Amino acid sequence: MNTFGRLFRVCIFGESHGECVGAVIDGCPAGLALVPADFAADLERRAGGAKGATARKEADVPLIKSGVFNGKTTGAPITILFENNDVRSEDYEKLKDTPRPGHADLVARMKYGGHNDYRGGGHFSGRLTVALVAAGVIAKKLLRPMKIEAEVSEAGGVKDSKAIGKAIDAALADGDSVGGIVECRVDGVPTGLGEPFFDSMESLLGHAVFAIPAVKGIEFGAGFASAGMRGSECNDDILTVVGKTKTNNAGGINGGITNGNELMFRVVVKPASSIAKEKRTVYLKTGKETAISVGGRHDACIALRVPPVLEAATAIVLADMMLMEGKIDRVLR
Amino acid sequence: MNTFGRLFRVCIFGESHGECVGAVIDGCPAGLALVPADFAADLERRAGGAKGATARKEADVPLIKSGVFNGKTTGAPITILFENNDVRSEDYEKLKDTPRPGHADLVARMKYGGHNDYRGGGHFSGRLTVALVAAGVIAKKLLRPMKIEAEVSEAGGVKDSKAIGKAIDAALADGDSVGGIVECRVDGVPTGLGEPFFDSMESLLGHAVFAIPAVKGIEFGAGFASAGMRGSECNDDILTVVGKTKTNNAGGINGGITNGNELMFRVVVKPASSIAKEKRTVYLKTGKETAISVGGRHDACIALRVPPVLEAATAIVLADMMLMEGKIDRVLR
Amino acid sequence: MNTFGRLFRVCIFGESHGECVGAVIDGCPAGLALVPADFAADLERRAGGAKGATARKEADVPLIKSGVFNGKTTGAPITILFENNDVRSEDYEKLKDTPRPGHADLVARMKYGGHNDYRGGGHFSGRLTVALVAAGVIAKKLLRPMKIEAEVSEAGGVKDSKAIGKAIDAALADGDSVGGIVECRVDGVPTGLGEPFFDSMESLLGHAVFAIPAVKGIEFGAGFASAGMRGSECNDDILTVVGKTKTNNAGGINGGITNGNELMFRVVVKPASSIAKEKRTVYLKTGKETAISVGGRHDACIALRVPPVLEAATAIVLADMMLMEGKIDRVLR
Amino acid sequence: MNTFGRLFRVCIFGESHGECVGAVIDGCPAGLALVPADFAADLERRAGGAKGATARKEADVPLIKSGVFNGKTTGAPITILFENNDVRSEDYEKLKDTPRPGHADLVARMKYGGHNDYRGGGHFSGRLTVALVAAGVIAKKLLRPMKIEAEVSEAGGVKDSKAIGKAIDAALADGDSVGGIVECRVDGVPTGLGEPFFDSMESLLGHAVFAIPAVKGIEFGAGFASAGMRGSECNDDILTVVGKTKTNNAGGINGGITNGNELMFRVVVKPASSIAKEKRTVYLKTGKETAISVGGRHDACIALRVPPVLEAATAIVLADMMLMEGKIDRVLR
Repeated sequence: MNTFGRLFRVCIFGESHGECVGAVIDGCPAGLALVPADFAADLERRAGGAKGATARKEADVPLIKSGVFNGKTTGAPITILFENNDVRSEDYEKLKDTPRPGHADLVARMKYGGHNDYRGGGHFSGRLTVALVAAGVIAKKLLRPMKIEAEVSEAGGVKDSKAIGKAIDAALADGDSVGGIVECRVDGVPTGLGEPFFDSMESLLGHAVFAIPAVKGIEFGAGFASAGMRGSECNDDILTVVGKTKTNNAGGINGGITNGNELMFRVVVKPASSIAKEKRTVYLKTGKETAISVGGRHDACIALRVPPVLEAATAIVLADMMLMEGKIDRVLR
Repeated sequence: MNTFGRLFRVCIFGESHGECVGAVIDGCPAGLALVPADFAADLERRAGGAKGATARKEADVPLIKSGVFNGKTTGAPITILFENNDVRSEDYEKLKDTPRPGHADLVARMKYGGHNDYRGGGHFSGRLTVALVAAGVIAKKLLRPMKIEAEVSEAGGVKDSKAIGKAIDAALADGDSVGGIVECRVDGVPTGLGEPFFDSMESLLGHAVFAIPAVKGIEFGAGFASAGMRGSECNDDILTVVGKTKTNNAGGINGGITNGNELMFRVVVKPASSIAKEKRTVYLKTGKETAISVGGRHDACIALRVPPVLEAATAIVLADMMLMEGKIDRVLR
Repeated sequence: MNTFGRLFRVCIFGESHGECVGAVIDGCPAGLALVPADFAADLERRAGGAKGATARKEADVPLIKSGVFNGKTTGAPITILFENNDVRSEDYEKLKDTPRPGHADLVARMKYGGHNDYRGGGHFSGRLTVALVAAGVIAKKLLRPMKIEAEVSEAGGVKDSKAIGKAIDAALADGDSVGGIVECRVDGVPTGLGEPFFDSMESLLGHAVFAIPAVKGIEFGAGFASAGMRGSECNDDILTVVGKTKTNNAGGINGGITNGNELMFRVVVKPASSIAKEKRTVYLKTGKETAISVGGRHDACIALRVPPVLEAATAIVLADMMLMEGKIDRVLR
Repeated sequence: MNTFGRLFRVCIFGESHGECVGAVIDGCPAGLALVPADFAADLERRAGGAKGATARKEADVPLIKSGVFNGKTTGAPITILFENNDVRSEDYEKLKDTPRPGHADLVARMKYGGHNDYRGGGHFSGRLTVALVAAGVIAKKLLRPMKIEAEVSEAGGVKDSKAIGKAIDAALADGDSVGGIVECRVDGVPTGLGEPFFDSMESLLGHAVFAIPAVKGIEFGAGFASAGMRGSECNDDILTVVGKTKTNNAGGINGGITNGNELMFRVVVKPASSIAKEKRTVYLKTGKETAISVGGRHDACIALRVPPVLEAATAIVLADMMLMEGKIDRVLR
């Protein structure tokens, strides 16, 4: 349930305010060079630092506990831990019986009979995406020279990056948060990845991407806009015998299978739910309505941190499919 | 790859112009009353009949080949076949080397080295959704009294059903097709279905739903609109200790887990790619550009047929999750 | 649950006295030549005909319902049906409330709340091995030139084939049955198949082989005899840099991984439980003890029919592993 | 590949002479009391101490890194680490190019292109069974009051425990090792666990048990002895309507399904391959034959340490099946 993949398998574990978060990556081919420095760039992108981002400062040092020997993967499961250091659990103790609207607080409590670790969202926290990013770094290395790039294309209702900054400032000033859209493009995907039923490329990407907290929608190519298009416009003219198309409304996928054009999709990231502005909720001990204002350190715009996470989820799916198709060797030389 | 589910498993097989299409449903509890007539309503809804729908007329008689004894499921795998009768493969022979823009023709040929059954899209055909609908009928019976309802909320760029009819007529007159949006709502879903990472409710629904041909996007609750919302507006106020919310922008899911409110999501269905209007493609034998106009019997608006298929995919996911949570007994009495 | 395999997946369905038994084989590479005649030899071996074998005569005609086009596999799921014709269900009606010792009658009734198809063992019948053999035929074709051969090495307590015949005759004369041992050898297995933990070669072969009814044990190489050996004797001296060994007490597997020597293992097949000789059981309607004598058409020595079934199970495992290692292409040319 | 289970999932990682070994247990119900002391008894049993056992002394302190909060499982993945402290890797450096007969040294090198961690067997080491035992402790707690007990029934060719001690002493004196047989019995298993095809109880137990290093065979109930029995003797008379049988030659399983009697099976454990006595092998750098004598700290009789590991593998299978049947709640109260 916390594992994804058929041949390249990723298992995520940990809690926001527990000892650590981490991942086991099973099925990675042997012989891939891997050192802690490989993780730095994507971890830094995820950690952010923009004014809208959380003030929680974690060093995010990847501890490779297994599966790597003499600087290369061994073929055995790779375990990576991230210790939690900058933890202030007292912030959360008082929230225990006052579930935050939009958060998993109440469903987690109900699903696990109150045994869940409620501190900082516990296992539901965005903190776990650090482990996803780590797994994605490995997948990206396997996929080279394929190129996966995600970026925020809209936030706070605007698309220009200066305007986005202003929208976030304005929201912060109001103790509020904003949503956004992140677009992902992959260059160099071979034709033929994906299966016609159930394991279509859209199915597997959708599956992985909805593991990212706050993602509430995904669309490929023209996506929802195709609802208002005619077939003559939407379906991409074919230009070459290997399937290059004139437009890319399909987002690089036909019939669930990659068609050799750029893979392209967008996800929507809802506005953060931990906000200073008051929201209505109930006090669980009495059942009485109450107001909640969440102080502390939180992102005003989660979307800003999603790009490396989205790239990671995408890379994990593609690495698995490339292995399934025999397009990545089990031993790298 | 053509199988979905962990405990309630569905495997889809068959080709549009082969002998049959069908499904094996493995893991269905024993003791569920099941007769061919149970399938009639949803199969009829899928078969359509609106002017926009294909003129191919299949009787769609479900042949139960295993797993049912004395009118009840036995607990062994249930196999259901649908014979293909109204097949006119000659329509397709001429298309063999002229891939249709928007179709899987070319990717299937490339993925399978030309061994794919190209007649009518073969295994990629929308015809296979008849098997998905059949599996969904069984899932729905298991889920009673949960209520799953999907309907077209938009097509051809308009939302009113009269206007939709006109838009389709206009497209047909032009030898063209239109896209649409289908909305699905589920009433009576218990709190606590779904897993925090990788098997979130959105992940599993996304996975299953993208198996439906022509679906190119999915959004839950406020979906893409939440990109332009603030957190104070988007996150749903909690009204009761069991999580009833004032609004339902979350679509009934927090942190990947159902929250007890109505489950709600929308999918976009692209316009049909088999159209009379000319599109550009290449003739594969020579590599030269050519025009293609697809005659024959095709849907002008696939979205019209999607509702029962979308309900089926949804029911399959929910049945699996209910079994995983022990909320449906393995033997029904 | 009725499905096995990760990339080469086999799903078995059907009942002994229902309409049919069959299999869906998903994940078979495209381009494999496949015609009904390919199945004849192994189906004939399984059908037997030795005096100890059942008198039930089925034509065992494989009906290929999907996944094959122009005589070759398409890459889509292959569905194969075998109709049941020579069915005499009245033989079983009277057994319904008198479970046969050694059979699944009572556990099936209890597990499925009495909804199981009890006729001829229903889904638990050895009849289903015809579907397993069919799947195995496809796997064997994929594995060429690898050579998988199983044969009865012991039955009725003796090892010589003349003596085995006499032992079976003697048992038949007493209305009784005998057990046996079947040995399987595979030549041409590459080094490196299998995974160190959980998916060791022994694990996967054990998993698949215990799906064959009446198999109650499996041992690799020296197997149980190694309990009485010393390490200096049991562990095979290594002769070459590619791992050829002097002896083969390991059965071709070290650490769960094939070592390039002949793969060798044995299974024990218990004596048939449907025998004329009286056994004690209970009449379920009253709970009273009673005697049961099973007439009709049954095998006196199931082991005689197991070789092609064991080869099939072995081939299915090896095909899956070869695909996982990228040693079989997804498209055959 | 290093993961086992459908709902109760165990993933094993680590290397003998790396930083640690460990396990992630995913799918454990919430609310199970779990403290480090729970692991002590089984870890101690595994660590051994008999003269035949290795002199490597690890403290085997389970470090619970995730999934437990306030002394109870949370429902999120449980991660347990065991640090490796008493490591003397120099012992192994010299063995690097001289593969030990009977060990995975050479197949690991070939499978992973020489990238495997060869120190002490790396990921193939018996050291990893400490993680399996830890996962088994959790499974056993879930299964209470079911009772799983394994013990050595034979070693060095003898069955009496004094004689076993002498046989091991004699082997040690010769720089040699001995094999053995371990028997496992489970009391309190409900009727109905297991699936007719592919996921039979024998299949799943076989799958898990062959993950234990050095196990080369498994037999249920009468096992291989049933090859020499007649059906009238082998098939167990049924005494009651709930299936209590007079004998237990079936080992508690009919048709792959538990029948409510004691579950009983035996595994054979081959003699240890790291022995002082000389064996023939090749020096990989030159391809020349050479002799090898493995000094250092090794078990003379691995079978002595297998009982808690076998219990663990059994408990993991049973916990998964009990969850699949809905017989263990997802939240314990």
